[in-house]
Amino acid sequence: MNYALRQRKLMGVLSEERCDAMVVTHPANIAYLCGFTGSAGVLVAQLPRWILYTDGRYTEQARQQVKGPRVSIVKGAPLAAAGLSLGKSAAAVRIAIEADHLTVAGRAALGGQLPKRVRLRATSGLVESLRMIKEPEEIERIRAAVLAGSALLDRAIAVIRPGASEISVAAELEYAARQAGADGMSFDTIVAAGARSALPHGRASQEPIPGNGFVVMDFGVILGGYCSDMTRTVHVGPPGAEMCAVYDAVLEAQLAGLDAICAGVEVGKVDQAARQVLRRAGLARFFTHSTGHGVGLEIHEPPRLARGGADILQAGMVVTVEPGVYIPGKGGVRIEDMAVVGEQGAEILTPSSKNLITV
Amino acid sequence: MNYALRQRKLMGVLSEERCDAMVVTHPANIAYLCGFTGSAGVLVAQLPRWILYTDGRYTEQARQQVKGPRVSIVKGAPLAAAGLSLGKSAAAVRIAIEADHLTVAGRAALGGQLPKRVRLRATSGLVESLRMIKEPEEIERIRAAVLAGSALLDRAIAVIRPGASEISVAAELEYAARQAGADGMSFDTIVAAGARSALPHGRASQEPIPGNGFVVMDFGVILGGYCSDMTRTVHVGPPGAEMCAVYDAVLEAQLAGLDAICAGVEVGKVDQAARQVLRRAGLARFFTHSTGHGVGLEIHEPPRLARGGADILQAGMVVTVEPGVYIPGKGGVRIEDMAVVGEQGAEILTPSSKNLITV
Repeated sequence: MNYALRQRKLMGVLSEERCDAMVVTHPANIAYLCGFTGSAGVLVAQLPRWILYTDGRYTEQARQQVKGPRVSIVKGAPLAAAGLSLGKSAAAVRIAIEADHLTVAGRAALGGQLPKRVRLRATSGLVESLRMIKEPEEIERIRAAVLAGSALLDRAIAVIRPGASEISVAAELEYAARQAGADGMSFDTIVAAGARSALPHGRASQEPIPGNGFVVMDFGVILGGYCSDMTRTVHVGPPGAEMCAVYDAVLEAQLAGLDAICAGVEVGKVDQAARQVLRRAGLARFFTHSTGHGVGLEIHEPPRLARGGADILQAGMVVTVEPGVYIPGKGGVRIEDMAVVGEQGAEILTPSSKNLITV
Repeated sequence: MNYALRQRKLMGVLSEERCDAMVVTHPANIAYLCGFTGSAGVLVAQLPRWILYTDGRYTEQARQQVKGPRVSIVKGAPLAAAGLSLGKSAAAVRIAIEADHLTVAGRAALGGQLPKRVRLRATSGLVESLRMIKEPEEIERIRAAVLAGSALLDRAIAVIRPGASEISVAAELEYAARQAGADGMSFDTIVAAGARSALPHGRASQEPIPGNGFVVMDFGVILGGYCSDMTRTVHVGPPGAEMCAVYDAVLEAQLAGLDAICAGVEVGKVDQAARQVLRRAGLARFFTHSTGHGVGLEIHEPPRLARGGADILQAGMVVTVEPGVYIPGKGGVRIEDMAVVGEQGAEILTPSSKNLITV
């Protein structure tokens, strides 16, 4: 990972924003900029040398991980220590804060240490905009995470049967993930069976899998610090014609979304490509979320592939494409892959088959 | 769960704070006040009727879960919708926000919808202070989560052996948790072996367990929405006299902490009771964190059992007691139970033995 380059890029962004320094508080942004993954850290980006403030629990970890900044171990709150130090720096007059992450109380704790001449400037997505375009080494990490994630699917399908709880399926997935060396799951595993498959965010519950119906499985691992994300939907028992048609429409929409991905394309066009397949099938009103999102150090990152989105896809972005149809009381289908945006189109990372599997 | 009582209590607190309404944005506080567990919700506490704002993904879930408030499904950001609605209410003049949870951007999104006559009042811990004292039904849920968590320990110990990865031990723990019906783990499982046991936050890694040394296991489950938290430390191979002495000192400190718990006692006294045992043993400088914390819907809640803390323990609080000693390069020991604060002392919830187990 090229931390020095990332740090130089951020200083360039800060200069464009006419800020002298930035207080980075979002853990994923801190990890991206200097490698530190502890839960309590504040990174001050300011020349001549950045400083990472953390507490005594992370002394050893910071020593091992931090690339570039000086490490300062503090007794009290790292944010207050950062403010105190910045307040003594005559060069810091306009300081960027992360408005999407810093809390109102955090801003007050920081601002309380600063003299009146200093202005805190609320910024949004400065580090995230750097993170959107993945370095080659990041793409390799993501590829490894996606392959590890995909390998779990068969283990899960093997334990799906009427009467088994959704949680027992999640248990198999997560056990296999840990056996494969995953740091953990990238989000709460979704296993949603029967009528529950119509819940887009149906976290695995103690409910038994019914004798006939869809089972939506949406899961991902964290491997080497990077997230994977995939969804497959299988059917328990023979599917009727209506449910087959729903599955086919979602799959066609998903393929259309993937086809629309290319560097230079507006993100809204990808959403539109998927959505209009479902519109033609008379199912658009059951597609209640956006088509995809970026993935990397976090499971949800920019860009968001949403209706009307005007952001432009760029080579090296990594996104999901995951249309779904949710018919209340009946069931739902979602199919999701991850893909790298390229100059010629998408490289699909997720190798698992998307044919409808009947259990 | 007595949601109506919780809602009445919060209105009383708001009245004391001279606020006409509150915008609750922290998911655990929303869950506590009205039962909704979706990830995107904003709860407006205002008479005559509270309103929960969420989006289309949670229509069905909100219908099933929300107890009391009216549910409003919105297309855009729930926070902006809440602001828009509050701005039209002549009765809302001073509105409480959660300064420890609402972001700077969230505050701006909310405030941007409000007329100038309205004041946003930064508050801290209003709902958390209600959550500190558990209802009897909550204590039963926590007790069930603690028992389910404790039952995992033997499964983990069974797979500890030199050369096995820390993650493989975490895998067993987490698989057993899911088999027992847990919603998930309450935090990233810590399995830290050998020299890594000296890292207080040593998340399970791919490192192999050495042939001789401590293995610290700190883990918890979420069951019925409530968290458990426990730590046990075992030794691989025969422990030397120095490490036995460290273990004994930590255990004595932990028992002293538990003994100090009683309604009416300052939290700092519990920390002091544990810390002075380690001071007498010449180990206090290696005890680098506080003695405990509250547990409930979240793994870390008030009160914090920290050095000098002046909060008073009250009957019905549920806390951890978890002193530790971490000797860089050598290893560490932590022992942690959960306990309910009672008028006569602590009721220890965690049934697992604390004798030193050698694997």
